[in-house]
Amino acid sequence: MLPTIEWRKDKVIMIDQRKLPKKEVYVECTDYNQVAEAVEKMIIRGAPAIGIAAAYGVALGLLRIENEENLNDEFDRIYRRLERTRPTARNLFWALEKMKNTFEKNKGLSLTKLKQRMIQKAVDIEREDLETNKKIGIWGKDLLKDGQSVLTHCNAGSLGTAGYGTALGIIRAAVQEGKKIQVYADETRPYLQGARLTCWELDRENIPVTLIIDNTAGFLMQKGMISVVITGADRIARNGDTANKIGTYTIAVLAKEHNLPFYVAAPSNTIDFNLPEGKEIPIEERDPREVREIGGRCLTLPHVKVQNPAFDITPARYISAIITEKGILRPPYEKSLKGLGR
Amino acid sequence: MLPTIEWRKDKVIMIDQRKLPKKEVYVECTDYNQVAEAVEKMIIRGAPAIGIAAAYGVALGLLRIENEENLNDEFDRIYRRLERTRPTARNLFWALEKMKNTFEKNKGLSLTKLKQRMIQKAVDIEREDLETNKKIGIWGKDLLKDGQSVLTHCNAGSLGTAGYGTALGIIRAAVQEGKKIQVYADETRPYLQGARLTCWELDRENIPVTLIIDNTAGFLMQKGMISVVITGADRIARNGDTANKIGTYTIAVLAKEHNLPFYVAAPSNTIDFNLPEGKEIPIEERDPREVREIGGRCLTLPHVKVQNPAFDITPARYISAIITEKGILRPPYEKSLKGLGR
Repeated sequence: MLPTIEWRKDKVIMIDQRKLPKKEVYVECTDYNQVAEAVEKMIIRGAPAIGIAAAYGVALGLLRIENEENLNDEFDRIYRRLERTRPTARNLFWALEKMKNTFEKNKGLSLTKLKQRMIQKAVDIEREDLETNKKIGIWGKDLLKDGQSVLTHCNAGSLGTAGYGTALGIIRAAVQEGKKIQVYADETRPYLQGARLTCWELDRENIPVTLIIDNTAGFLMQKGMISVVITGADRIARNGDTANKIGTYTIAVLAKEHNLPFYVAAPSNTIDFNLPEGKEIPIEERDPREVREIGGRCLTLPHVKVQNPAFDITPARYISAIITEKGILRPPYEKSLKGLGR
Repeated sequence: MLPTIEWRKDKVIMIDQRKLPKKEVYVECTDYNQVAEAVEKMIIRGAPAIGIAAAYGVALGLLRIENEENLNDEFDRIYRRLERTRPTARNLFWALEKMKNTFEKNKGLSLTKLKQRMIQKAVDIEREDLETNKKIGIWGKDLLKDGQSVLTHCNAGSLGTAGYGTALGIIRAAVQEGKKIQVYADETRPYLQGARLTCWELDRENIPVTLIIDNTAGFLMQKGMISVVITGADRIARNGDTANKIGTYTIAVLAKEHNLPFYVAAPSNTIDFNLPEGKEIPIEERDPREVREIGGRCLTLPHVKVQNPAFDITPARYISAIITEKGILRPPYEKSLKGLGR
């Protein structure tokens, strides 16, 4: 299992995903600000992993508090700092809400006890995410047939979650059953999560993976070389519209054009029951340097104007099914998602 | 005007497009093998520019011949070397055929005269390409309205031709008429012709350009921010199916999904009247390192399997019009292209 993030000896340890696959470097966070920065700088990324980081961030923030005066204000400060790290991933806000509930319920206890409860809650969130992914894998694996080729975008794997992964979890589960699955990984510019993380994860487990540039997905579909598309999700609206890594919408359109199934794999805490549809999902615009540069090296004119949205919205009509830990949801999603809203 | 390629003092001079926009470096070729290598290594690229380079390569090869013995064999050797540089661009073979005709017609002359004629022919091919592009611009500019946004892929500009460009020539002509045009340039992985060359060209002329990663085109269309797509072409089959830089097909599918016009701009010598349809166009598979690396820096696992087709085929049904120097061709292309086949 890949060590995405861990609570160890009153610290939060995470693998620095910016440095993979070249180097396996671990970052130690000793205060919540460091956790917030790690999320912003994409040392850790992937909606479920961001949620876990935020939960640990809250626990770490409380752990450093030394007296009970202004406890509510201190909690608020920690919460707000972590909340404003990245706007799109639903799981971030979900995890913060869970931590807030735990805080509210236990703030009458002694500070020591409260700290223990908060740490325990964050550890539980991490452990539950791993179990969730394994369930997603069990539900999803039957959608893949022996000998099929799966196209995936970005990294919805161990590194984007507590472990095992959502989209990659389904692939893992199918492979563990003995199915031969060939994966095509989009490199996923600008941040190259496909080239750097998905290829690394699958290669470690000897799951056959071929790296392509994002431009090649259409070519492969036209040649009949893709059987199925599976991606993760950063936020799913009540009607099934799904925010995911920029480029996902393009693949969904291509899949529709080639009559290929397009599946979204995500834990149910990715669903935002407050949002009726996708156009209300906030889309993060990131630093233009992510586009202009690779590894600090300028690829274009240093002053060229850039538009760099980190996510796009795939309307529900392009999505064949949403695979959650609670089962496979089919359209109409207004109805099938509703059952999960508790 | 940008100096893509030039015949000067019995040498072929070209700007090294691999080094742009960081450095303006010129490469001097003194024999036809250097020209062939320059095409293979993409020191010069773009279908019309490759054709011009091949013509100059033939002229240069003949210029170095010192006696008339085995003249036909020598010509054949030069021809075959240049012919096997890149398989997809029709203009390469078109230019080689033109040079061969000139050779056949003039090989009875003295070697000195023959050499002069061959050089003159290559210079004519270059000059005609420039005129052709200006005509494409004149035909095409009326398709663009004041205030529109054009998405383009790769570089179909001055650098991919003798000058002025095909897709970018249309934009230049519209801007010269006083229309306000906003260009979105796909970065165009793996070789980044959009980020490196299209942005550079347009920026030099103060034509507003915004760089996006290839994954962002669908997002912009969904937001209503693109009015029109214009790309170049590497080879057009008799039915209008068009080979162009990998990723073009994806944009064409996206354009159809958003009811946007998708235009191909190309000189009529890009049309291959021998090929009934696109699936017969040979697609070059290039070095996996283009995908694994940027500037010699490995982005992924050094051993990961890669598929790296340099082009894809856009079926004719996605193409709203093909803009040539002879006019704007509309579907059905079997009929409209036929008129040009002389």
